[in-house]
Amino acid sequence: MYKQYDVIVVGAGHAGCEAAHAAATMGSSVLLITMNMHTIAQMSCNPAMGGVAKGQIVREIDALGGMSGIISDKSMIQFRMLNRSKGPAMWSPRCQSDRMKFAEEWRYALEQNLNVDFWQEMVSELLVENNKVIGVKTQLGIEIKAKAVVLTNGTFLNGLIHIGEKNFGGGRTAEGKATGITEQLVRLGFEAGRMKTGTPPRVDGRSLDYSKMEEQKGDESPNKFSYLDTKPLSEQRSCWITYTNQAVHDELKTGFDKSPMFSGRIKGLGPRYCPSVEDKINRFADKDRHQIFVEPEGWNTVEVYVNGFSTSLPEDVQYNALRKIPGFENVKMFRPGYAIEYDYFPPTQLKSTLETKLVENLFFAGQINGTTGYEEAACQGLMAGINAHQKSENKADFTLNRSEAYIGVLIDDLINKGTEEPYRMFTSRAEYRTLLRQDNADIRLTQKGFEIGLASEERVKNVNTKIEQSKFLTEELKIKKVKPDEVNNILESLGTSTLREGTSLLNLLKRPNIGIEELKTLTPEVEELIRNYSTEILEQVEINVKYESYIEKEQLMVEKVSRLENLLIPESFDYSKLTTISIEGRQKLAKIKPATIGQASRISGVSASDVSVLMVYMGR
Amino acid sequence: MYKQYDVIVVGAGHAGCEAAHAAATMGSSVLLITMNMHTIAQMSCNPAMGGVAKGQIVREIDALGGMSGIISDKSMIQFRMLNRSKGPAMWSPRCQSDRMKFAEEWRYALEQNLNVDFWQEMVSELLVENNKVIGVKTQLGIEIKAKAVVLTNGTFLNGLIHIGEKNFGGGRTAEGKATGITEQLVRLGFEAGRMKTGTPPRVDGRSLDYSKMEEQKGDESPNKFSYLDTKPLSEQRSCWITYTNQAVHDELKTGFDKSPMFSGRIKGLGPRYCPSVEDKINRFADKDRHQIFVEPEGWNTVEVYVNGFSTSLPEDVQYNALRKIPGFENVKMFRPGYAIEYDYFPPTQLKSTLETKLVENLFFAGQINGTTGYEEAACQGLMAGINAHQKSENKADFTLNRSEAYIGVLIDDLINKGTEEPYRMFTSRAEYRTLLRQDNADIRLTQKGFEIGLASEERVKNVNTKIEQSKFLTEELKIKKVKPDEVNNILESLGTSTLREGTSLLNLLKRPNIGIEELKTLTPEVEELIRNYSTEILEQVEINVKYESYIEKEQLMVEKVSRLENLLIPESFDYSKLTTISIEGRQKLAKIKPATIGQASRISGVSASDVSVLMVYMGR
Ligand SMILES: Cc1cc2nc3c(=O)[nH]c(=O)nc-3n(C[C@H](O)[C@H](O)[C@H](O)COP(=O)(O)OP(=O)(O)OC[C@H]3O[C@@H](n4cnc5c(N)ncnc54)[C@H](O)[C@@H]3O)c2cc1C
Ligand SMILES: Cc1cc2nc3c(=O)[nH]c(=O)nc-3n(C[C@H](O)[C@H](O)[C@H](O)COP(=O)(O)OP(=O)(O)OC[C@H]3O[C@@H](n4cnc5c(N)ncnc54)[C@H](O)[C@@H]3O)c2cc1C
Repeated sequence: MYKQYDVIVVGAGHAGCEAAHAAATMGSSVLLITMNMHTIAQMSCNPAMGGVAKGQIVREIDALGGMSGIISDKSMIQFRMLNRSKGPAMWSPRCQSDRMKFAEEWRYALEQNLNVDFWQEMVSELLVENNKVIGVKTQLGIEIKAKAVVLTNGTFLNGLIHIGEKNFGGGRTAEGKATGITEQLVRLGFEAGRMKTGTPPRVDGRSLDYSKMEEQKGDESPNKFSYLDTKPLSEQRSCWITYTNQAVHDELKTGFDKSPMFSGRIKGLGPRYCPSVEDKINRFADKDRHQIFVEPEGWNTVEVYVNGFSTSLPEDVQYNALRKIPGFENVKMFRPGYAIEYDYFPPTQLKSTLETKLVENLFFAGQINGTTGYEEAACQGLMAGINAHQKSENKADFTLNRSEAYIGVLIDDLINKGTEEPYRMFTSRAEYRTLLRQDNADIRLTQKGFEIGLASEERVKNVNTKIEQSKFLTEELKIKKVKPDEVNNILESLGTSTLREGTSLLNLLKRPNIGIEELKTLTPEVEELIRNYSTEILEQVEINVKYESYIEKEQLMVEKVSRLENLLIPESFDYSKLTTISIEGRQKLAKIKPATIGQASRISGVSASDVSVLMVYMGR
Repeated sequence: MYKQYDVIVVGAGHAGCEAAHAAATMGSSVLLITMNMHTIAQMSCNPAMGGVAKGQIVREIDALGGMSGIISDKSMIQFRMLNRSKGPAMWSPRCQSDRMKFAEEWRYALEQNLNVDFWQEMVSELLVENNKVIGVKTQLGIEIKAKAVVLTNGTFLNGLIHIGEKNFGGGRTAEGKATGITEQLVRLGFEAGRMKTGTPPRVDGRSLDYSKMEEQKGDESPNKFSYLDTKPLSEQRSCWITYTNQAVHDELKTGFDKSPMFSGRIKGLGPRYCPSVEDKINRFADKDRHQIFVEPEGWNTVEVYVNGFSTSLPEDVQYNALRKIPGFENVKMFRPGYAIEYDYFPPTQLKSTLETKLVENLFFAGQINGTTGYEEAACQGLMAGINAHQKSENKADFTLNRSEAYIGVLIDDLINKGTEEPYRMFTSRAEYRTLLRQDNADIRLTQKGFEIGLASEERVKNVNTKIEQSKFLTEELKIKKVKPDEVNNILESLGTSTLREGTSLLNLLKRPNIGIEELKTLTPEVEELIRNYSTEILEQVEINVKYESYIEKEQLMVEKVSRLENLLIPESFDYSKLTTISIEGRQKLAKIKPATIGQASRISGVSASDVSVLMVYMGR
């Protein structure tokens, strides 16, 4: 019934969609199998993309030629650049999405890709021969062959939903769980674990009193995610902010004895940085209020997402507590919050391509690798899809290192350190975060994406223009000098010291009180010079000039470290020879099988002295 | 957690949505509880509304103030008036729908109704006290009170999906089944049965070769369903026609030994008039081909619905057979066809308001009453919603009789004759089908809908204008005479006999070869007279003039029969007194408890002589 595919992707969440799109765009014939074609690219939890560190990931996905940025642009209802008041390394794009439109746009995008076929069913088994995956088997018993398989099962594997003392099987509310795969993988020697996550109740926007909340509007000149020419929003929807209080906390506490978390019924570990509201009032007992973001679910629907109120307490406790929140006095609930436990596979079982070490041509991506979040899932899907394609064509691995992308940081962390709790990206995880900015993801990655056949020529053209124009403007700023009598009045009014002699615009731009906007006001000539450039170029140049020293420092560091990164360890290296290092270090090395000395140095449990010994054994 | 509602509607399919909307619009506070808020108003099977007899129902729903017409208008991608070549009683509007948009529009419409609240969960039990329903209980154990409850569970009650030899629980593909309610109702004394229905595979439009099929375009001047000012389509999508052949049939036959229908694994009775393709080639062995309609699922999606190919044969048999259909040689399947078995409640257990006889304030509507089809479900939902509202306000029952609406025919058939197989509407079921036309549903019903507070004033205004203008034009046609020398040339060219003396336009219009279009060509004066009227008025007048005698005949018949209809039988009537009539007649009468002599005469198993005896006992 089926031809042999190059790549089969199991699951059409954020990871699966990116994986299918990437492999197909690069030329693989792809079959995307998912349990329900109506829920392709469903946002399981909050209707939003991006945010701190996550927004950078979306920009990186886009720069490489992935779709999450474009889809977000087409379905957003609000855009904000977070952390604008901080340094540009912290700037993080974030949007509210129309949940239904997001899913719709993803589906259309995939349908437009002629290399993507679809099949709606549950995959219950992998076809494995000689430690190589050769296809999948579905619930109906259909066997479909492929050169590579990407698993992106999300929260569905043996999913168990908890609300108060009740629990029932499911992969997401009102969707069935997936079974079979975990058990088979464990039989094949994989280690599996259990994690949990939660989601807040959804409520009826018509029942809220927004006059008691603070309005949070979108940016005045909203930006967007994609480096392509998607359109920024001309109209936006607001979010609203309110707070819990002691009365809310007291109501919540009445349900603690029935909480599946506190009672120990939930065994899986939850995301520490995305705690449930009961967790928050329990762990931070001294805080008398917590912020609640009231987020619309779309352009037209009245459904509202209560961000910050994730909970698995009994539904009546949820309700009674909600009603004590200012603006929620007459709240009506649409669906209760819940927690879900699901299987994951500790990601130290993966290579840096996201291929499993145990079974060749089998790739894992997304929540099943112990991560949480759409962006984290999507970028893994992208990388797994790329590498599944490369592998099936006997082409080179495609990996990104920690100085190139948050994506590199994420995968490097996962495969070397593993994760005990759902892994979420933070800027603090990146040691080179001045390099890994949202504004330069295209400069960092688009050429790479193009070389493997994913990013389009249009993208390369865009980024080259950006690079050239930035250079050109920088040159002009360097050459163009202004004289004291021309500008001193203005400089004084800007609160910065006056000039004694002619100075280049570049030098002025380095001053803390002077940005491109201020430069413009110096003379009509300068204004004219600058006017010709787009905001994007101006921003780029300003950042490069102002943060030059930080950038250089990090770049130096990268070069230093990359020497270690270039010291390859043969796959066959026998770690049992390293009798003089710690037992833990030896075991961890043997388990992870690092590809480079650099990677070895980042494995938790492997000390610096262990690494020195290793280098000696390798003849260095 | 919940206030007491006036009406709770269980299930948000076509029946549930209409029920909730109607009761809420009339002023009831309504809670709509459904298992998955993402699947509100999902079209389970074909992406189309209307069709022969069904289109008339949609027009009737609209005329009364229901939503199915408006939603269809907003989400259609093609419109055709079927049977235009036949008499106007047969004209039937039908549209192809964008499946996702249809659901979206329904959801938005309900959200805009301030009296409708939502709750996502499975109802597992009814709260019944002293044979009165007082609310529902959900899977989580929440008890919610209401004055009336409308059950519209569709195909979900103990739903069992079959594909070849495999079967699994589910209410629709990729959705869970509902449990608990049937068992409870049976304990309460209800009779339950089992029915089945089926759906064809969905395929990838990109894999079809349309050049081998016949194109079926929408109407050139597409009409629409609603009597309100929704917009007709300016762009349309085509459907395509192809045929099965002997090779297709041979492939299908290879799966017969694994067919759940032929093996007897499926116990429920399926719709005879909507047979599966295996049924067709089995029952009509002499037919060497069957028509297949290839229908797009929406404006943008490539998914295609294979109308005419409903099947529950194994998926590989489906696939191999599809590939033998011209244009399908390279077909790719998205999802296999399947059959589903589900519980229904023989509708003879209902009053004409759709309230159950056993439990007060409990209403049943839709597929659980043994019907099939969106339109049949929707109109029952509307009537149940109306009557649930009326009951909860102690207001009069709202029913329609057989001469007023297809809706009246449907409900009358159901409650008196019951149904052994899924009941579908046909024009042949209506004895007054010249009266029950799609063009006059507003004239028949809008005033009634307005009086109960459902149809808006705007609707009444529209229909009154329509009635007045039609009368006015008819008067004008009666008065305005044309002379032989003015028109005889033209009459001759129209192939109709010439005039000897002045004749009114009305008389000319009665001639078979002359329609309004032809009248226009007679003289510039006539053209000017007619030009002032909308197509709708012209159509109305033409039909009334041309079919006057048929209409009058049916009207006479209605009056005769309505005398019986007006003979009320007291609810307490003791049928055991009727010792002289047949035992079957006596039992059926006692079970159905007909409200009138007319109704008694339509009960299957009750003979004309039984009715005479009954009338004697009633003192007539
Ligand atoms: C209740 C809940 C709360 C969450 N809360 C948060 C939060 O607070 N913060 C946060 O960042 N993230 C949260 N998430 C996580 C976020 O939804 C995920 O990180 C993200 O959706 C993961 O993407 P994915 O592609 O890995 O998997 P998913 O989006 O879960 O998609 C998995 C897909 O695979 C399909 N599938 C699974 N098994 C099979 C099979 N055997 N055969 C065929 N198809 C299969 C499913 O149908 C689905 O389409 C939450 C998720 C849930 C369910
Ligand atoms: C596979 C299949 C094939 C079909 N083929 C045809 C065909 O060929 N021709 C045709 O005319 N019709 C066909 N139909 C029937 C058509 O879909 C139905 O007639 C129509 O959808 C019935 O509408 P409804 O409102 O009664 O129920 P549905 O549309 O089935 O909706 C029922 C709703 O109730 C909800 N629900 C059920 N139980 C509960 C509960 N306990 N608690 C909360 N919510 C609940 C469900 O989630 C759903 O939203 C088919 C249906 C199916 C599933």
